Amino acid sequence: MKTGDGYGDLLLAALDTPDEVLEIVERDDGFIMASRWGPKGYYSPYRMWPSRERRAFRFARGRVLDVGAGAGRVALHFQEKGHDVVAIDASAGAVEVCRRRGARDARLCRIEEVDASLGVFDTVVMYGNNLGLLSSRTKGGRILRRLYRITSERARILGECLDPYSTDDPIHLTYHEHNRKRGRMGGQIRIRIRFRDIATPWLDYLFLSEDELRELLAGTGWRLARMIRDDTPIYIAVIEKGGA
Amino acid sequence: MKTGDGYGDLLLAALDTPDEVLEIVERDDGFIMASRWGPKGYYSPYRMWPSRERRAFRFARGRVLDVGAGAGRVALHFQEKGHDVVAIDASAGAVEVCRRRGARDARLCRIEEVDASLGVFDTVVMYGNNLGLLSSRTKGGRILRRLYRITSERARILGECLDPYSTDDPIHLTYHEHNRKRGRMGGQIRIRIRFRDIATPWLDYLFLSEDELRELLAGTGWRLARMIRDDTPIYIAVIEKGGA
Repeated sequence: MKTGDGYGDLLLAALDTPDEVLEIVERDDGFIMASRWGPKGYYSPYRMWPSRERRAFRFARGRVLDVGAGAGRVALHFQEKGHDVVAIDASAGAVEVCRRRGARDARLCRIEEVDASLGVFDTVVMYGNNLGLLSSRTKGGRILRRLYRITSERARILGECLDPYSTDDPIHLTYHEHNRKRGRMGGQIRIRIRFRDIATPWLDYLFLSEDELRELLAGTGWRLARMIRDDTPIYIAVIEKGGA
Repeated sequence: MKTGDGYGDLLLAALDTPDEVLEIVERDDGFIMASRWGPKGYYSPYRMWPSRERRAFRFARGRVLDVGAGAGRVALHFQEKGHDVVAIDASAGAVEVCRRRGARDARLCRIEEVDASLGVFDTVVMYGNNLGLLSSRTKGGRILRRLYRITSERARILGECLDPYSTDDPIHLTYHEHNRKRGRMGGQIRIRIRFRDIATPWLDYLFLSEDELRELLAGTGWRLARMIRDDTPIYIAVIEKGGA
């Protein structure tokens, strides 16, 4: 097994043969799952998006930063609707897919690296559970303060996230407990994507409850303005400036 | 991660929620894949079977041993057609699924353990690539001689197998080469099933070309009578008694 851009390879493979590839995610406790959603979902057109994502779309405005752009479904939709969009992803393969699919400004950039060189944004979109890219309490606070500095006064973050505590599955409950014991947040999962003989490096991905999100926002200048929910444990947080 | 009957757990989960589970197979070089076929395919009715399996069915007769019965699709079909069938599997979960689905005689038994206590068989079915359960050159020879002793004079083995050399994928070609260097047959893959937080023990599974199969049969009392092929690299070998 090699370490590399398995996520990008997956997206590139799905570009050619969308029905033949499935996404495999492995957690550091050995829990593993294959998903029917990804990578097909990464390519899904607006009408196929979960209703919460479509409903949250009306809170977007102006210049958009698409964080963790994947195959570019969000960036391409905003672009089509006339928005100026910058799509960023930490995967070179993902950026290549975004560009091939027509994203006008797709860049290889981690969320923790965003700065004024990207310009000023009115909306930061973190769909597809990408609020998880906040990674941890410490790193998440740093990232939120960084996003504060590169956004306009009336800016919003639209952040999608799974509430990790909505489960009663003993495997996940044990994992949350194990996390807390090692000083991590319960839903701070460490995962990697595996594709063929490639594994991505391990990545901390942060699933937060609403209360945990409020705590994380405190002191960053951001506040939770609205929660958009459907019949799943996944929500979209509409986050605005003006926090304590 | 725990070691256990992840394959049985997968089949049991598929019994309840067939559309939610996907089979993940990991090879010892780190190559990993998720399959849409399994576990749904393990439950597939006769009319959904690959054409080669349906065509090979007419070479079956009499009392049947279904080796690696999985969710019992083969055993149940033969049973329905009036055959006396013994279904064996090394997975306790698989045996439970076979029984729950109505298999009259399903037993927890590895192929290398079959003996006269099971009675005499006229047909040994190894569908779903289960010729691979021959494992290796040495073990395969032993198993074939054992099957010889518990079968009637006009008995047949219907063994399904992927020809491993039908690929031009560098990952697989490198793996074959690596295998040969460590004294294994090229297509002697070492795999395990991963399901949630469980991994099965590593299993040697033998993919053979037609020539390799002929060599393996030599000296066992069996001979290759017929190859049934379709437009895939998977064949069914009809094997009869009367070899050198």
